[in-house]
This record gives sequence, C-alpha cells and structure tokens, in this order.
Amino acid sequence: MQRLALAALAAATLASALPAAAAQFQKPEDAVKYRKAAFTMMAAHFGRLGAMAQGRVPYDAAVAAANAQVVVNLSTLPYAGFVEGTAGSEKGTPKPNVWSERAKFDAGAKKMQDEVLKLATAAKTEAGLKAAFGAAAGTCKACHDDFRNP
Amino acid sequence: MQRLALAALAAATLASALPAAAAQFQKPEDAVKYRKAAFTMMAAHFGRLGAMAQGRVPYDAAVAAANAQVVVNLSTLPYAGFVEGTAGSEKGTPKPNVWSERAKFDAGAKKMQDEVLKLATAAKTEAGLKAAFGAAAGTCKACHDDFRNP
Repeated sequence: MQRLALAALAAATLASALPAAAAQFQKPEDAVKYRKAAFTMMAAHFGRLGAMAQGRVPYDAAVAAANAQVVVNLSTLPYAGFVEGTAGSEKGTPKPNVWSERAKFDAGAKKMQDEVLKLATAAKTEAGLKAAFGAAAGTCKACHDDFRNP
Repeated sequence: MQRLALAALAAATLASALPAAAAQFQKPEDAVKYRKAAFTMMAAHFGRLGAMAQGRVPYDAAVAAANAQVVVNLSTLPYAGFVEGTAGSEKGTPKPNVWSERAKFDAGAKKMQDEVLKLATAAKTEAGLKAAFGAAAGTCKACHDDFRNP
C-alpha cells in the first residue's frame, strides 16, 4: 500500500498548494462548473465502490483499489470551487451557510477526506470494503444534509 | 520527484484497472456527463499551467507541481466515458470517428498522457514549464482537431 500512502501524501500536498489557485477562476460560473465536475467524478467512482460494498456487482480488488484511489485524488479538489457569491436556491445548489459556517463546512470536507483514505485502505479486501463504506458515505450525506438545497 | 513517479505509476495502474469500470455507466448520458466533467477539470488545471507558461501569472513551483499532478491523475480518466453511441453533431461533441478510428483516438490519448507526464517533470522549473507546455497543449489540440465537432 505504498502507492496509497503516496496518494495520501499527494492529496495532502495538493491541499496545501491549491488554495492559491482558487483565485484563478476567472468567473464565478467557472468555479461552479469546476466544483460540479469534481463531484460528478467523485460520485461515479464512489458509486462503483458502493456497488461492490452492497453486493450489486462482484468484488474485484483491483477495480476497488483503482476507484478508491481516484476518489482519494479527487477528494481535495471540489472545495476551491466554493467561491463567495455562488450560493443557490435550486435543488442541488449550495446553501448560503457554506460561507456563513465555513469552518463547519471545511471540517466536513476534512472528515470526508479522512474517511475516503480509510476506505481506500480497507477496500483491499471485500470484508474491509463492506465494513468501511458506510462511514465514508455518511460523510457525503452529512454535508449534503447541512449545506445542499434539497 | 518520487511523488511524481508514484503519480505516474498510479495513473498507469488506474489505466489498467479502470476500463472494466466503463461498463458501469448505467446510461449513456452518465458516460457523457462523466467525460465532460473530466475534461472540465483537466482544462482548469492545465489552464493554470498555461497561464504560468505564458507569463500571465507569476511562476510558482509548488502551484505548478500541484496542478501538473492533478492533470496527470486525471489524464487517464475521460476515455472510459467514450462509450458507443455517444457521438454528436453540436459544437464540442465527439465526431463519429472517435469510434470508427478508435485506434487513432486511443493513440492520441496515450500521446497526451505521455506529454503531461513529461510536463509534470519539466514544470519543476519555470524554464522547463515554458519549454514543455507547448508540446502538451499540442496533444489537446490534435485530438480536438481530429475528433471534436468545431
């Protein structure tokens, strides 16, 4: 799992270097498009882990590892796209409290990043994947419940 | 640059494990949405390298490394989304020859993946970034010219 440790290191390195890049979205719409793209990709790969965790598709260790690694790599990226002034009111858009409760929002992001790292380690075995998937999925739901318009 | 070597290894590992996952898009629209998301993210991070390569923003080695690594990580991902039956005719959609000339399309993808790896190494210095950026950007343009509706 040296590869995974490196992925974690890489993700941490990215997290420290990329916030400066948030200023590089030329327009708020670019930031919105970017964060939606990041969550679209995360959902696709996380969903494949879920399908295996829930027995809807056969467990495959290589596929699980590949998808978990993509999720880890992506997990730090969406947040740069939450630039001021991009709250919404339609279903699926962020509520204003993303910004008014930013520390709580950021803590939720960190919790998700930690849980997907644990999931990536656990997913080496079918039993591990099944055991760890729910906690990771719970971090998605927690932020959606608190910060996303239903 | 051990981190970068690992990123390359991880990308190669992903490329070998993920094709099986292509079958996991439940609907063609999901595959289309996925590949568009992947290109949206690549364009954002590649664009930041371009801004530094072209002197529009100051060179920053850490930011360059972080963005290059994201591009490398993403570079293998969009292609699973090119599932049969998802050609288009509108601007920005794939032409049918993505499928009728799939070997050429895949070779173009591989060329891009190779060039962004080289770019990630070169981007450690400002001179290296400036020297290597054009070749990587050229691989984007080559596929767009051949396979994307203008």
